Amino acid sequence: MDLHALDTPALLLDRRRMDANIARMQRQVDGLGCRLRPHVKTSKCVPVVQAQQAAGARSITVSTLKEAAVFHAAGIRDILYAVALAPARVGAVLALRAQGCDLSVIVDSREAADALVAACREARATVPVLIEIDSDGHRSGVRPGAPLLLDIGRRLASEGLLAGVMTHAGSSYDLDTPQALAAMAAQERDAVLACARALREDGLPCDRVSVGSTPTALSATDLSGVTEVRAGVYVFFDLVMAGIGVCTPEDVALSVLTTVIGHQVDRGWVIVDAGWMAMSRDRGTAAQAVDQGYGLVCAADGRLLPGLVMRAANQEHGIVAWRDAIAPADLARRLPVGERLRILPNHACATAAQFEAYHVIDAGALVDRWPRFSGW
Amino acid sequence: MDLHALDTPALLLDRRRMDANIARMQRQVDGLGCRLRPHVKTSKCVPVVQAQQAAGARSITVSTLKEAAVFHAAGIRDILYAVALAPARVGAVLALRAQGCDLSVIVDSREAADALVAACREARATVPVLIEIDSDGHRSGVRPGAPLLLDIGRRLASEGLLAGVMTHAGSSYDLDTPQALAAMAAQERDAVLACARALREDGLPCDRVSVGSTPTALSATDLSGVTEVRAGVYVFFDLVMAGIGVCTPEDVALSVLTTVIGHQVDRGWVIVDAGWMAMSRDRGTAAQAVDQGYGLVCAADGRLLPGLVMRAANQEHGIVAWRDAIAPADLARRLPVGERLRILPNHACATAAQFEAYHVIDAGALVDRWPRFSGW
Repeated sequence: MDLHALDTPALLLDRRRMDANIARMQRQVDGLGCRLRPHVKTSKCVPVVQAQQAAGARSITVSTLKEAAVFHAAGIRDILYAVALAPARVGAVLALRAQGCDLSVIVDSREAADALVAACREARATVPVLIEIDSDGHRSGVRPGAPLLLDIGRRLASEGLLAGVMTHAGSSYDLDTPQALAAMAAQERDAVLACARALREDGLPCDRVSVGSTPTALSATDLSGVTEVRAGVYVFFDLVMAGIGVCTPEDVALSVLTTVIGHQVDRGWVIVDAGWMAMSRDRGTAAQAVDQGYGLVCAADGRLLPGLVMRAANQEHGIVAWRDAIAPADLARRLPVGERLRILPNHACATAAQFEAYHVIDAGALVDRWPRFSGW
Repeated sequence: MDLHALDTPALLLDRRRMDANIARMQRQVDGLGCRLRPHVKTSKCVPVVQAQQAAGARSITVSTLKEAAVFHAAGIRDILYAVALAPARVGAVLALRAQGCDLSVIVDSREAADALVAACREARATVPVLIEIDSDGHRSGVRPGAPLLLDIGRRLASEGLLAGVMTHAGSSYDLDTPQALAAMAAQERDAVLACARALREDGLPCDRVSVGSTPTALSATDLSGVTEVRAGVYVFFDLVMAGIGVCTPEDVALSVLTTVIGHQVDRGWVIVDAGWMAMSRDRGTAAQAVDQGYGLVCAADGRLLPGLVMRAANQEHGIVAWRDAIAPADLARRLPVGERLRILPNHACATAAQFEAYHVIDAGALVDRWPRFSGW
């Protein structure tokens, strides 16, 4: 396998960086006394998740039932499907459980709770259910203190389905100081602990207390009472995470290999063959203190090229330019047609989803090709 | 096949809308006396392109050599690869031509021209080459009047490779009045005609004069001297095109079928199971007069629901809300958990790329499933 023979654009995965990222999160969550349940929606790749397991993870989080089916077929039993269950999916959930998958699900509505209770009664089956809690006004979930919590809890407990509570502090993506991140981690924890207490005080069971996002997981200092932590993007990291401050660009394990195909010398532009089809349309750094365009630019060997950024993207074209707009006059000689570059992505989950496989590199050499899946 | 049995999110293609869009563009380009060369990067789907052929298109444009190989295998001979050729791809181009594909390519640099000339001489092969012209400062191409034009032209002609000139007025995407669009169409035409004239006055051949973008193609009134028009997204249309003014939301043939999975009643939010993994991260309407968020919302039967927009998206969650923020108090009864909606996309090329197949509907009934491909 020869890195130089790869057609471009191609998705590269730096094995050592990934292993360091995995070890760091496992150490952090172990130190907090919780179980780590990696969210595999980032990689959708069996060898990546096997590396997370080898480091100590015993269970996973998924965003689709297809992920649950693929990873169960790959030998993983304990899986949490962390998107509010649509009633039409109850049958598929029970079918996966009947195949031996220890699949748990989440709900934040009476409708979904009732659909689960009715289906489990009918099928004489059971499924562990966590009630989703809204800890930060970000998206889904029952607000702490809302009467809906006990209502859903009692409905689920009537059939023995209530297993606990979970939340995701997605608002942590909007923060960029250690203080604010630590406060959000505490807020995320306090919200689920308050709900767990309310359920228990009502005589309802609440064995599992689950929190997580990469920024809060890495910023938490005390998760007493929490049983598990979910995090996904840490496995690769990306420029959004660097902007939040929980990693550096040098930790980012994913990059897109691209080829220079032209120049507009007087505009200071280098045209490459990685457009948004390769990078994704994710512009997650646009709202951060430093806008990284469609990504930071590295030489083919992975060294960051200071001052360069992918400033625009069409479907199969990227425009690389100098951030301060002072391009060298000899840019076409410095980065000639045919030269290869690597682009670090804004959002690893979105960029990885544009590709069918990871080309794994170790110490600069291509060592493996790991397929990933997509779709629902 | 039952539309209600489809798992969500799913990509729907309204056959009648697509056929009307295809007929409209074919009529327009026929009326201008040019050949239509549809850009198939939008659909990457053989049955869609066959419908374009049935309406009169005899040739296609592609954005990757994979598209060229797939559509050549499907029986299409005349293919233009409309991304500046990287020298490393010359071998693959000649291999496709050796298989009988009438593949032409574009260049805008001496390096690519020289690589082609050397390879064709070595292989005793030939390939028609168009010089890319920069008609609007948008991206790639040789500026009209630049000495580079004749330099590249002479290099190519020395080996008999020079076939013509081409341009893409990508800046048309930033316009939204018929006057500005017509002016851009004239500018696009005038740029390539000036370059064609310069080549011919130098004694060089220039048989093909190619222009195109969906907005300029639909806004041109006189393309005398132009031989062919390229356009892609018109086949489906999307909200960006509606914002430019070349279609209406009712012309948009693509939509994403989704299921309501929850509510945040006091915020006026309806949570659905189509996030950015389904819609893509494309926010192409953000810079337009009306920002359509991640898409406009229709009932399951395709009727637009006025005032509703997908305002935010996470990987597998979308947040649908009322645009004026005055949500009805009974929103959870109007759009209950389990209800199905359809979201019209900002950018058809980007949304379609998130799916493996089109579910084809005709008069509201599911009639077919057309696979699409991805990757490079």
